[in-house]
Parts: sequence; C-alpha cells; structure tokens
Amino acid sequence: MNGRKSKYVIGLMSGTSADGVDASLVRIDSDFSFEEIYSTVYQYPLDFQRRIKSLFYENVSMKEICVMNFLVAEHFSSAVEQLLEEADLPPSDVDFIGSHGQTVYHYPTDDIEAGMPLKSTLQIGDISVIAKNTEIDTIGNFRTADIAVGGNGAPLVCFADEKIFGKDKVPRTIQNLGGIANVTVVSQKCETFAFDNGPANVLIDYFMNKYFNQPYDKDGKIAAMGNVRESVIDDLMKLAYFDLMPPKTTGRELFSYQFAEEIEQKYKLSKEDMIATMTAFTARSIADSYKKFVFPKTEIQEIVLGGGGAYNTTLKNMLKTEFGTEIAVKTHEDFGISNKFKEAIAFAMLAYAYYYDIANNVPSCTGASRKTLLGQYCKAL
Amino acid sequence: MNGRKSKYVIGLMSGTSADGVDASLVRIDSDFSFEEIYSTVYQYPLDFQRRIKSLFYENVSMKEICVMNFLVAEHFSSAVEQLLEEADLPPSDVDFIGSHGQTVYHYPTDDIEAGMPLKSTLQIGDISVIAKNTEIDTIGNFRTADIAVGGNGAPLVCFADEKIFGKDKVPRTIQNLGGIANVTVVSQKCETFAFDNGPANVLIDYFMNKYFNQPYDKDGKIAAMGNVRESVIDDLMKLAYFDLMPPKTTGRELFSYQFAEEIEQKYKLSKEDMIATMTAFTARSIADSYKKFVFPKTEIQEIVLGGGGAYNTTLKNMLKTEFGTEIAVKTHEDFGISNKFKEAIAFAMLAYAYYYDIANNVPSCTGASRKTLLGQYCKAL
Repeated sequence: MNGRKSKYVIGLMSGTSADGVDASLVRIDSDFSFEEIYSTVYQYPLDFQRRIKSLFYENVSMKEICVMNFLVAEHFSSAVEQLLEEADLPPSDVDFIGSHGQTVYHYPTDDIEAGMPLKSTLQIGDISVIAKNTEIDTIGNFRTADIAVGGNGAPLVCFADEKIFGKDKVPRTIQNLGGIANVTVVSQKCETFAFDNGPANVLIDYFMNKYFNQPYDKDGKIAAMGNVRESVIDDLMKLAYFDLMPPKTTGRELFSYQFAEEIEQKYKLSKEDMIATMTAFTARSIADSYKKFVFPKTEIQEIVLGGGGAYNTTLKNMLKTEFGTEIAVKTHEDFGISNKFKEAIAFAMLAYAYYYDIANNVPSCTGASRKTLLGQYCKAL
Repeated sequence: MNGRKSKYVIGLMSGTSADGVDASLVRIDSDFSFEEIYSTVYQYPLDFQRRIKSLFYENVSMKEICVMNFLVAEHFSSAVEQLLEEADLPPSDVDFIGSHGQTVYHYPTDDIEAGMPLKSTLQIGDISVIAKNTEIDTIGNFRTADIAVGGNGAPLVCFADEKIFGKDKVPRTIQNLGGIANVTVVSQKCETFAFDNGPANVLIDYFMNKYFNQPYDKDGKIAAMGNVRESVIDDLMKLAYFDLMPPKTTGRELFSYQFAEEIEQKYKLSKEDMIATMTAFTARSIADSYKKFVFPKTEIQEIVLGGGGAYNTTLKNMLKTEFGTEIAVKTHEDFGISNKFKEAIAFAMLAYAYYYDIANNVPSCTGASRKTLLGQYCKAL
C-alpha cells in the first residue's frame, strides 16, 4: 500500500537516572501497529553509573567525554547482545536499532549569541560503535534535529503516543510516571500537546530511600499504610510551577533533594505518612494540571499510565479517586505494552519512521517550527 | 556501469589549528575522478577560535560541550552558506555534504578497561544541525567507525590518496605539510601505508610568530635569507621519534612550544638563521624517514606536496635537494587540486563512498581489523 514493510527493530533507552539500558525488540508494521517481542534491562555496573553522573555535576576533561561517548556505546552494544542472547536470536533477525543514547546535557534555552542559538542537547553513545559492534544498522541522535528546526528536542515520545493511541479516536492522555510526571494529550479536539505535570516518583523515592532503604515504594504498600496530610498538599500546591501555562518542563532542579528536605523539616510527618502524602501530592498535582490545562481543550475518556509509577497501586487508586468514574484509568499493559519499556519502544518507532522518511517530530509538543525527520543513520557494513 | 552517478558534494574540514572551516564543492564521478568547482575558507571569529582551544586544554562543563557541539555546526553551516553565495549556487545544486567536524579529542590508546577498549575520538559539529540549516543531506562522524573496528581513526585521507594518485600506477608519496608532516605511500609494490614524519610548519610558525609577528613564512622568504646551521639539525635528528617504526603519529605534545623554546635557549641562532634551520630540519627529517621506512618497501617516482607548506618555496627547494633529481617533487596543484583544500576534498570523497556503500577506510593505514563504511547520515528532510 505505502511500500512499507514490517521491520524488526530494537529500541534502546537510558534515562537521566542512568542506571542502565532498557532494550525492546519490536516488530513494527506499516501502519505503526506493533508487537513487543522481547524486552530486557541491561544494568550499568555501579561504578559506571557513578561515572556517568559525574558528567552531570562536575567539570570534566575532553578526554573523559571522548572516552565516555565510546564506553556508553559499548554498554548499549552489550544491552543489544544481552537481549539477543536471552531471546535466542541472531543479529541478522533484527533490521535496525533505534538508540536514544545517554543524555548528559539538555539546554532548551531561547538565548542567542552572536546571531546563533544556544539551544542544544547532548546524547552520548556513538552510533557507529553500536552498529559495528552489534552488526546491526543503528539510528540515533534523534533530539538534535528537532532543536535544529527550533524545537526543544523534547518530548519525542509524543510521536509514538499519537501512533499508538491516536488511531481509534478515543480522547486520551498518556500519563507517564517517571521521576517527573509528564503527559501527552491525544484527541481529535486539539493538536497533540504535552507537558510536565510536576513530580511523579522523585519525592516518594527520596523518602523511601531515606526512611526504608528501598529504591521505591513497591506496589505503593507503604503509602497505603500511612495517612495523607491534606494541609501539606494544599501548601505544596501553591508552587508557582503549577500555574505556568504549557508547554513547560521541570526536573530535579525544582523537585530536588533540597526541596524534599525542606518538606521534611517543615512538616515533621511520620515515615509512612510522608510516603502517603507525597503519593497523594503526585496524584493531586496531576489532577490539578488536567483541570487547568487539559479539560479546557478536550474531554478525556481514558488516562493511560506508564513508567514505574504505573505499578504503584496506591498512586493509581488515588488518581482514580481524583478523576472520578467518568474517566477510565488504565496502564500501558492494558494495551499490551510494558509500562517499563514504553520509551524504548518509542525510540524503535522513531527509527522505523526515519527509515521510511516519515517526519517523526511533533511540533505542537516540542515547539519546532516544522515537521522534520529526526535521526542519524549508521550502517553496520 | 556500476550504477553510480556523478554527485556534487561539499567537503568541510577544520583542523587542530581551529582557525576556520575549509569548504570545497567538488563534482565526483563514478570512478572517483573529480573536479574542484569552488573552494573557500570560512574564518571562525577570533573569540570562537579561543573558545574551541579552551576545550583542548581546560576542564569544561557538560553545558559548554553541549552548546559548542551546536555552535560549531552553526559555523560549519555558515561555511556552506558562504561557499554557495560566493559560487552563486542554490543549495539544491548540491547532493550532499561530507563534514569532518572539529576534533576536540583524539585518543588512539590500546588500553582496555573492564573488557572495553578506551580507544576513542571526538569530533563536534552536529550533522543534524548542518543538514537542517543548509537544507542539504549531511554525512559526518567518519572517524568513530574506524575506531569501532579496531583502527586508530586516522589517517582517513589515505582513501582519497589511493583514489586520486593510485590510478596510473606511478609509485608516489603524498606528502602533507601541515603543522605536522604526514605521508601516504601509494605504490603497486606494497599496501598503502602512512605515518607522521615529524614537524612540518609547527616550529617554523612558532618562530615566525615570535620573531616577525607573522603567522607563517610566506613563500619561505625569511628562510631563504638565513643560513642553515647543520650542527643543530644533526642534534635534533637524534630524537627517538625518528627511529620509531610506522605506523606512528606525533603532534603538538612532542613538537610543542616548550620544545621550540628549548631549541631557542640551547642554540642561540639569529632570527633568520632559526627560520632557515627549522625549515631545513623539516626537509631533513622527511628525507630521513623515507630512507628508513619508505625506500625499503618501494621506489618512489614522485612526491606530491600538500598543505600550507607546499607553498613554501624554500622548503620545496630543500626537499628537492634532499631527494635528488631521480624523484620529481610536485604539488597537488600540478594535479589540479588546491594544496589548501585537499583535506576538505578528501572528506567529500569519503561522503561519496558512504553514499554508495563503498568501504572507505584503509586498514593498512589506520590499523583497523577490516574494511568498513565510515560515516553517519542525516537527511535534510
């Protein structure tokens, strides 16, 4: 019909937590329907995680960046090898790889210097190294092209959200619950748009670590044991960020460890109550953002949760309470997609689009001046 | 015949001197014969030159590298725009760009860490930014793939040397005279090989700057006014580097400003004698390297000079004296190629090869384990 064929694509993603690489092998069909065939997590060694994080915070030598661009690519290659081994498949069964790389800096400024924009982003993990190591053609560096046409280089996942959730014309939000909560709104009533709601797991995880020595609140069990202190939430909802108009992004600069410690000092909650209250704060700030920025543009029939927070039953129940019975709260798994691997799959879809010359940025989400083809291609040859 | 067509390609090169971008538009034909249509030099602003150089020597923030990757690409885009304006051509007349980028680190080590090679190289100047700005498909990041298959990522120019100078089977060296002197040997008698001879202009330029406040010895006029002190040359020829077997590379780490100052302190030559002696030292060390490493493998009928030193008449005459009448000393311009733009043209040829899936590294020169396709492709679309 459109000359496009089904392709077997591996998507590779490592987020700002920099703990490892999510790798998903998917079969993508000509209409962007797809099947998740096998997914796995490749953990970076602990000292390598630290080494990546030191790039974020410290001044470094050019030698270190030069070497790390290659070492990240070596680890991404190992992630591919781990996936193929576990799935018992040869590299020749894979058509190409779509690699996000490892973001080490993202700078969506509007500043201009000597007539040239300073807006920029840097993902490391050289695609030639991945392509030659794995013997699979590799497409990567998706974000820079969006910035080159005036966008913020993020969010890119909206492209996949439109393809996956836009087909049946049900007005939906795709609500990702990572460290930060971000939402994509897909509806016939408006252009696809996206923004960061506020914190998702970042504060919960901080206190889980501090009080319970655990990386996160598994299934939301601790939150379920505590009581929500409403007055704390009312107070936190006064943050100026929640009134900013989208498009808007936030991160660990605002919802920082220091911010968490201020909450701790000021409100003196019990450990369980703190977890319960932070979880409710996430649910409330998401619901509040919908009232302010989503519902004025479109009704919503379904909220599709994704990211690690989608497995937090208490958070999910709180969201159901916030939104009431009119809106169905689902997760990606209701659509046959792992919550965990959604982003890796999105980069496989971006690569598929590049391969067939299908513009794969969403200007209404990134602020780009035009649709363009994101990605750079390296042949394994 | 081979399905390949003539293509109009812009080659972009900025060397370690980081003073600007050499840009050449060439028509390349299916057998790699070519015509240089228009070439120009785009100067980086002075403060931008300094900013690039600060990357070489200082620890920097990830933000600075992130921004510089984009700003270098903006300047490379401006170089393309300058070329098209001067040549009065629209972007649509160009099929694609081959961009070397700006090297900010090159680390051809054999060290391994936790089973992963540390060998790496880093060129900045994002190709998506160049492609979207210029509206011309852009191929770049050639060096990383050679390292990914075990090579040193350099020299890459050998590919062009073979294509340009290998056809008529005359045994030749292509002797580049940049800051450092490097040679490619193209002969039917041996595999193509290459190495750095030693200094070319680096010491001459240092003293021209210091004594005459000029960037280089134009036409070798100052050298022609001085006397060569043979005893100094005999002394300098004892450097261990000159006895190392190829493949070998050297740079400003060895032939440094400090090295120049030691020469100054030790020998106390007059200004003109210093320029004359450094020029003769370049000629002698090149001739010496041929006796040790080239002539044992193949006779040579022609030496083809390139780089800025090819315009230094005194240096050229000294080389003629060193090599005698049996060997013709020519320059690239005798073959219709600017000495100045040879490298930019070489990157246009590497891009042409990538475009047609022709392996474009020379393992006998780079030490790579196999032939491979160097480059990453970004569509302007």
